[in-house]
Amino acid sequence: MKLYHFPRAPHARKVNIFLQEKGIEVPRVEVNLVEGENLKEAYLARSNRGVVPLLELDDGTCIDESLAICRYFENLHPEPALFGTEPQEKALIDSWERHMEFDGYLPGQDAFRNSVERFANYAVAGVQQEIRAIPDLAQRGRVRIDIFFARLDERLAEVPFIAGEKFSMADITGLVSVDMAKRSKKFLPEHLVNAQRWYKAMCARESVISTYIES
Amino acid sequence: MKLYHFPRAPHARKVNIFLQEKGIEVPRVEVNLVEGENLKEAYLARSNRGVVPLLELDDGTCIDESLAICRYFENLHPEPALFGTEPQEKALIDSWERHMEFDGYLPGQDAFRNSVERFANYAVAGVQQEIRAIPDLAQRGRVRIDIFFARLDERLAEVPFIAGEKFSMADITGLVSVDMAKRSKKFLPEHLVNAQRWYKAMCARESVISTYIES
Repeated sequence: MKLYHFPRAPHARKVNIFLQEKGIEVPRVEVNLVEGENLKEAYLARSNRGVVPLLELDDGTCIDESLAICRYFENLHPEPALFGTEPQEKALIDSWERHMEFDGYLPGQDAFRNSVERFANYAVAGVQQEIRAIPDLAQRGRVRIDIFFARLDERLAEVPFIAGEKFSMADITGLVSVDMAKRSKKFLPEHLVNAQRWYKAMCARESVISTYIES
Repeated sequence: MKLYHFPRAPHARKVNIFLQEKGIEVPRVEVNLVEGENLKEAYLARSNRGVVPLLELDDGTCIDESLAICRYFENLHPEPALFGTEPQEKALIDSWERHMEFDGYLPGQDAFRNSVERFANYAVAGVQQEIRAIPDLAQRGRVRIDIFFARLDERLAEVPFIAGEKFSMADITGLVSVDMAKRSKKFLPEHLVNAQRWYKAMCARESVISTYIES
């Protein structure tokens, strides 16, 4: 198998953090998004979205969804469990992972893709057609990031990690979402002490340090 | 346990289709979204997003993400497997389920929530703050629905069901996504014969018929 990735791409980083936390080594191929390697025919044959990360299995099957890639490795190597072990624990991790993604990552992506010059005509990830940026959507993203930060703090006032008592996939997606917001100069406010405590603990993990992306 | 739902809400319908396909009965409580029952204090104490569906477990734990609810039931009652059984099959179902959701459902939601009068000031689901509709985003949603339909047809030219040879969770999310687009008068084009063949087969399933929503 081969993992196609680009270290600076947030979803690729998510998988890289996950694999390091699990202690799994996978052969990697770097796809330079800045140089458009993901839009060449050979790559689009693997995924018509032209996205990274992408996991190519030995039989040629390609999986181009970061969370599906992580869960696949979890199924192959259950320990340490980052998606939980019991049904209720699994459900909470699933649910909180999705809160991070839908309420945190997507607003951060809206804010970023709809405001930077290089995506002005390609504002939607995974689509090659020209789609123009929407400044109002960037602004909506910024408003939603504030709501996300506040809810993150509320949650982390109750529990040490996002899904509860243990570090999980939800924390990885949460970290990547907070860092996505930084790209639009939206930083986790200092007064949100619960979210700050969690964020600092995340940033001290070896998997997070070694995959650090300059904002 | 109790499942809070509203039959006309697409994610609630998704869970209802899933449960019927699995043959699982769950006590249900209807939450009338049109009358704002989801925004009352008692309900917001279960989920600060005020969304349905929501599964309340016997210990009071609440799960407000439809896919996490489905997966929870799959873990409790593995057969018939709608999330797959082997790691590779599971990964394909996960990945395709996400294609349906991110590339199909979200554009449909953008098109709908940003164009109908009743959401003009509450354009983001799961958020109680006023957020105004963005007409350009409704238009972007419509463009993306066309891309989604074309890709759906491309995929279904290769395989009978979205994730491959068997009916799965990906088909349920796909069906709900196609029906979401209908709310914005975007209908699966007749010339996309592969997607049409699949859609007609989906619409003939008892679980889909019994949860039909008038557009």
